Amino acid sequence: MKPATIYDQDLAQSGANFAPLTPISFLRRAAAVYPDKTAIIHGRAHTTYRVMWERSCRLASALRRRGIGRGDTVSILAPNIPAMLEAHYGVPMTGAVLNSLNVRLDAVNLGFILEHGEAKVLLVDRELSAVARAALDRIESRPLVIDIDDALAEDGELIGEIDYEAFLAEGEPEDPADEPAEEWQSISLLYTSGTTGNPKGCVYSHRGAYLNAFGNMITIGLVQESVYLWTLPMFHCDGWTFTWGVTAAGATHVCLRKVDPALIYRLIDEHGVTHMCGAPVVLSVLGHAPEAAKSKFPQTVVVATGGAAPPSAVIEAMEAGGFRVTHLYGLTECYGPAAVCAWQEDWDGLDARTRAARIARQGVRYLTLEQATVADPETGKEVPRDGQSLGEIVLAGNTVMKGYLKNPDATQAAFRGGWFWTGDLAVLHQDGYIEVKDRSKDVIISGGENISSLEIEEVLYRHPSVLEAAVVARPHEKWGERPCAFVTLKDGREASAGDIKAFCREHLAGYKTPDMIVFCVLPKTSTGKIQKFALREQAKALDP
Amino acid sequence: MKPATIYDQDLAQSGANFAPLTPISFLRRAAAVYPDKTAIIHGRAHTTYRVMWERSCRLASALRRRGIGRGDTVSILAPNIPAMLEAHYGVPMTGAVLNSLNVRLDAVNLGFILEHGEAKVLLVDRELSAVARAALDRIESRPLVIDIDDALAEDGELIGEIDYEAFLAEGEPEDPADEPAEEWQSISLLYTSGTTGNPKGCVYSHRGAYLNAFGNMITIGLVQESVYLWTLPMFHCDGWTFTWGVTAAGATHVCLRKVDPALIYRLIDEHGVTHMCGAPVVLSVLGHAPEAAKSKFPQTVVVATGGAAPPSAVIEAMEAGGFRVTHLYGLTECYGPAAVCAWQEDWDGLDARTRAARIARQGVRYLTLEQATVADPETGKEVPRDGQSLGEIVLAGNTVMKGYLKNPDATQAAFRGGWFWTGDLAVLHQDGYIEVKDRSKDVIISGGENISSLEIEEVLYRHPSVLEAAVVARPHEKWGERPCAFVTLKDGREASAGDIKAFCREHLAGYKTPDMIVFCVLPKTSTGKIQKFALREQAKALDP
Repeated sequence: MKPATIYDQDLAQSGANFAPLTPISFLRRAAAVYPDKTAIIHGRAHTTYRVMWERSCRLASALRRRGIGRGDTVSILAPNIPAMLEAHYGVPMTGAVLNSLNVRLDAVNLGFILEHGEAKVLLVDRELSAVARAALDRIESRPLVIDIDDALAEDGELIGEIDYEAFLAEGEPEDPADEPAEEWQSISLLYTSGTTGNPKGCVYSHRGAYLNAFGNMITIGLVQESVYLWTLPMFHCDGWTFTWGVTAAGATHVCLRKVDPALIYRLIDEHGVTHMCGAPVVLSVLGHAPEAAKSKFPQTVVVATGGAAPPSAVIEAMEAGGFRVTHLYGLTECYGPAAVCAWQEDWDGLDARTRAARIARQGVRYLTLEQATVADPETGKEVPRDGQSLGEIVLAGNTVMKGYLKNPDATQAAFRGGWFWTGDLAVLHQDGYIEVKDRSKDVIISGGENISSLEIEEVLYRHPSVLEAAVVARPHEKWGERPCAFVTLKDGREASAGDIKAFCREHLAGYKTPDMIVFCVLPKTSTGKIQKFALREQAKALDP
Repeated sequence: MKPATIYDQDLAQSGANFAPLTPISFLRRAAAVYPDKTAIIHGRAHTTYRVMWERSCRLASALRRRGIGRGDTVSILAPNIPAMLEAHYGVPMTGAVLNSLNVRLDAVNLGFILEHGEAKVLLVDRELSAVARAALDRIESRPLVIDIDDALAEDGELIGEIDYEAFLAEGEPEDPADEPAEEWQSISLLYTSGTTGNPKGCVYSHRGAYLNAFGNMITIGLVQESVYLWTLPMFHCDGWTFTWGVTAAGATHVCLRKVDPALIYRLIDEHGVTHMCGAPVVLSVLGHAPEAAKSKFPQTVVVATGGAAPPSAVIEAMEAGGFRVTHLYGLTECYGPAAVCAWQEDWDGLDARTRAARIARQGVRYLTLEQATVADPETGKEVPRDGQSLGEIVLAGNTVMKGYLKNPDATQAAFRGGWFWTGDLAVLHQDGYIEVKDRSKDVIISGGENISSLEIEEVLYRHPSVLEAAVVARPHEKWGERPCAFVTLKDGREASAGDIKAFCREHLAGYKTPDMIVFCVLPKTSTGKIQKFALREQAKALDP
């Protein structure tokens, strides 16, 4: 060890030169700098940053009076409404951990999460009170239930001990300013909507939330003039941490209870929306909305998408409609976005299709993440940059979760060798860009050859009659597995299974062409991901 | 103490979810994502991010071979050239601390700094070798001297043991990737150009540098398409940490050996410059450049200024010429910018003069700083928001220095009560914006009334013939002190002392009108600040 140097003397951390990183600071600043600016638009209601701050402080104060403090869990089951944003500040102000619940979960899963996360309080929007009641009925220790009686909620009963507004009235609008005590403290608990087994609870730190919010601002260019439309669920990785990032910019949040294309187009026009996020399915819905529902708007809207690679055709359609698509990649385990398909100058000259193919790649690490690459799961070494060698995406840095709550085995399994192993199979291109080829379990192995279901889906999406498509493996006596395609056609468009197969054969190697085409409505998870496990079950059961 | 909670178990920091914050990461990412993009333009030379990274790694490696490591000081005396940028990465990569030297200091001060900072290595540009040699002659322990033989240097001898390029050739271009060990580690040592007494060495951490770079990016809107012209000295707070922030954005640095208005206008046009920074005097020089030297350019250039409040007239002139002025406030002690005069929507409708007066205020805390306000030096309490009550600007947060090197007394004096006391006197306006009224020592006390020298200077700058002006106190038998103005007229313009006094009397209270007007060239510090202490001496010596 080297002896102490002149820099090791009298240069310690103090209140003057050190503060824990926390997104609470973003709202404190926005309220100080832009007190009269609209922070939140919700229907006809406009809330200023001063009021948003005061209400968040009241929430914190009221929670404290009920004994909530550091290390307690406060759950919330609500769509994208102002109370959800307030919870993202008020709850951490007490030192407690916010547990946003997926609004599409069933009572069994919700019950499991409330119990596993040891929720002390549950805030629930009245439209979701039925499933909340069913979940509460299943668990032993009932949390304090607070009803959010949102003005735009259409139905649902009140099931709680107290109304949200009455609860806020119990609190004081003063800044507590004493949490977090340190930046590694937990701020958020989010359960992954696993396709099998019990959900796992990803825990975020104040530090990670603060940094990822910066990463978002810089990546999609949020500034104080920005207007952000909440097409992405806030329960989804805390809205990919945009719940904090939009406030950091001093921009305006526009709430949205549900993804309704006509309403979205109206809000984009009415409020001058500049930014929004969503899974590819949201882009698809917007792109395929009836022409009458599509408004013309003067601004370009930056749409960040992720969760799955957006099909090239969807990107092309969006760009034609006044949107600029930025492709992000991430998971619940890494605060939402962890990679961005960063634009390169020489892409400007590419034709639309080639460009769309570039954009469809997952890209490179976020500025706020330290490392992202593709590694061989056996050796842990980076795969060659050949666009061919399949490996697993691995991440490391400050915006990877603290771990899975009360699940050290799962945490250790995910954090092997200093990496977070995502479970996503991908290749590295020569330019260092990552491209997802498949989830491990979505690879189809036919005659010993790996077939990417994504590659087939890409082709299916190019068919003019196809709205959505998903390809899974179907067990096969001879080949082991064969691809089976599930397809939804666009309204008013027709195509036979034979047409679709012929189209695939034109654009794919013969062995990759699906043996079977099934027309149906695709089953989705609550976050809009297609439920491939359900399709696999269906495929298994199909007659040959 | 509360008992441990579920969040205190098995959620520790590890290599997968934690990394020390360091700006080295910015260059590592830029080199990975934009390897072939131009990182640095210097005359006709264009350097890519791959090459900038490799050269920085070589510098680190060569320094290590010479025994340089954690806690060592590496000094550099150079204008804004590529080697200066490389040093901002290569030196911290070794764990050593970069000490950028003010190029306008004399040998006495340079010698003091080299000795006090215990420099082990000195990199010196050949144009500055004469003063470097004189400084080295004054000190006992000679560091390793490395000559930078820059292609655009016009003269000067080589005085070192080795040439910079030969030194780089000793190193390997590989990423060491093992520093800093922790983010509080020191990255930079910068001496304040104090007007009296020995300079004090402000020490920065990797964490603070990383965060302030983000603050800059967000505040002035740096993105990957940005082109940043180095009109601000890099030795000045590490170029207000833009040495790191421009790289973080993956933008392009345009080097500049000296502030030459014709060259600046040419570079703005030729390279499509989008951003630059500088003291108000730089803006003044640009605004008053001969028309023939001013190029027309299509883009709007964001100019961030600070170090002193830009006179409204200067702001107006710049805006008319295609620039957008952003006013920052800061000090060497806080990594350069700590506050920004953030734009408010309702300023759009103001007339140019009122708007310029708003912009001339120092504003509100940076997003990356936790607190900035005006406090009563006696009580430590915030002054009323009345635009009247004078107090001292105080700051707190992650972008305040670690302290003064080997000077615990000065550090403690500066860090009283959890604040960094800036020594700048200011008021708080109703909207929470800070406005500097004066440096403590620049207040003129006349008949018991405080007179702000800045207020008088504002008026002087409005006079059509005045290029620059400075007002100081002159001792006075009856009133204690009286304001005395030093004025430089614009080329080809005339005005008598009587004209100037009459103009002041029109716009100021009688007691604020300067008794004496002295026409002269204003003495400046090496960073372009007017040396008021010298003017005070002059004023004292004047006949009544």
